[in-house]
Amino acid sequence: MSSFSTMAPFKAALVQEQALGDAEANLARIEERLREAAGQGVRLVVLQELHNGPYFCQVEDPGLFDLAEPVPGPTTERLGGLAGELGLVVVASVFERRASGLHHNTAVVLDSDGRLAGTYRKSHIPDDPGYHEKFYFTPGDGDFRPIETSLGRLGVLVCWDQWFPEAARLMSLAGAELLIYPTAIGYDPEDEAEEQARQLEAWRTIQRAHAVSNGLPVLSCNRVGHEPSPRNGGGISFWGHSFIAGPQGEILAEGPADEAALVTAEIDPRRSEQVRRIWPFFRDRRIETYGELSRRWRDQS
Amino acid sequence: MSSFSTMAPFKAALVQEQALGDAEANLARIEERLREAAGQGVRLVVLQELHNGPYFCQVEDPGLFDLAEPVPGPTTERLGGLAGELGLVVVASVFERRASGLHHNTAVVLDSDGRLAGTYRKSHIPDDPGYHEKFYFTPGDGDFRPIETSLGRLGVLVCWDQWFPEAARLMSLAGAELLIYPTAIGYDPEDEAEEQARQLEAWRTIQRAHAVSNGLPVLSCNRVGHEPSPRNGGGISFWGHSFIAGPQGEILAEGPADEAALVTAEIDPRRSEQVRRIWPFFRDRRIETYGELSRRWRDQS
Repeated sequence: MSSFSTMAPFKAALVQEQALGDAEANLARIEERLREAAGQGVRLVVLQELHNGPYFCQVEDPGLFDLAEPVPGPTTERLGGLAGELGLVVVASVFERRASGLHHNTAVVLDSDGRLAGTYRKSHIPDDPGYHEKFYFTPGDGDFRPIETSLGRLGVLVCWDQWFPEAARLMSLAGAELLIYPTAIGYDPEDEAEEQARQLEAWRTIQRAHAVSNGLPVLSCNRVGHEPSPRNGGGISFWGHSFIAGPQGEILAEGPADEAALVTAEIDPRRSEQVRRIWPFFRDRRIETYGELSRRWRDQS
Repeated sequence: MSSFSTMAPFKAALVQEQALGDAEANLARIEERLREAAGQGVRLVVLQELHNGPYFCQVEDPGLFDLAEPVPGPTTERLGGLAGELGLVVVASVFERRASGLHHNTAVVLDSDGRLAGTYRKSHIPDDPGYHEKFYFTPGDGDFRPIETSLGRLGVLVCWDQWFPEAARLMSLAGAELLIYPTAIGYDPEDEAEEQARQLEAWRTIQRAHAVSNGLPVLSCNRVGHEPSPRNGGGISFWGHSFIAGPQGEILAEGPADEAALVTAEIDPRRSEQVRRIWPFFRDRRIETYGELSRRWRDQS
């Protein structure tokens, strides 16, 4: 049983990286970062979404299913070994082959003893120009349950999930003590600067709001750098800005816009307890009125 | 039927005020502000929560039920007359006496023809030191339905509701085109400056996030000024900062921290349509997984 609310403060880190080529190149860099983090006394590390390579969903290409791997599989083996060796809890991201013709965008958690503590399959799947994820990923059929680790119950969600307060709430109601988002989001380079600024700030705002409404810290690790489209000259400029927020949504640490970084902050679990006492939102939810949240639209007639 | 998404831009205003004494004094000031707004071409005006007097919920006093009035009643009559005369849609706030022993914190909407277009009874009721609302207000027994007006369907909620994404979502699913929050929130003067800053920013963040997750503008009108407690020297310093945000949560206008102000901005309904096309969150909600949002807590065993 977790005793998160009385746990001493601990250091967490986000590994914000550019894509460096194939899985071996990226995992080699991640290994360096994990060692660097452990050397700084970090105990929890979050990697970005689909960190083993470029963001391949810019196009729909059946050949790219070759990139998928099982869970457990090579990536969880390797990262589990490092987690155990370094005594880190690691939240990672895998393009999961569950069966022939059935793939997921899956977050995996390696506990500090090296064990695969649990997985979460991305539930909300985007499909926008440059983000053709509905082609690759079946929506997760899980239940928004946090993953028990030596650092508490981790409410792990993935990227597009971050826009849905429902996902954050269901995780929190199930006892999540941190919300964690591996993500890969960026600008369309053809958008105007003002639109780009609004998008970044909206992304930060919605996730900070999950911290506020649920009274817990939020950790969001985004990739960085420009990745050209295989089909045209556009591509995506991933906006970095990975951040760690406290339980009032306050920014504790934030990464740069344009380069790789190890973003670290100290998380104090006792703050969540204090904040939930002064802002007792869970006391006051009007659950008898919430049934229609399960409707697609509350049509007029 | 509303055709909000093709409506031309219009000007909206928030009347951020200090409490000036009794209802007559406050309504006289509000009348001045409505005339000022109309003179500036404003078409929608939002007043702060319980604008007819000081925030009386700092203490529990049965005598204060004398302040309540029916709806429709004197305040809706007076404001309805002004709305009709000036051609304004007005969102106001009344301490409603529904029956002996049954009172609500009720938002009322007067349409630009002077008609009482609808009411909303605050659903989520706080009870914190200095905010003893559970003593005065029965939680609304409505259904989170927007109010149809000549400026579209207004998703009117009240103050503490603003911390609950469920309320914003239910209003949006029912077709709300704007979210509107009359509110009265402030600092405990004894809190440290850093805590005060976190609270203000959290309040702004959670409401801006409702704009983001639902793709619509949010208007929040807060009171301002220090109101001493009738029982001790503490009291509440209402933090002002009334704001209007666009459908990506971007701040369009914001009031000062320490004085009364008429806060105005232009709202462009067509922006909501554009934003919902690039961020199609309503397309992707996983409604088949949301049933447990109606649970108090998703207990472990």
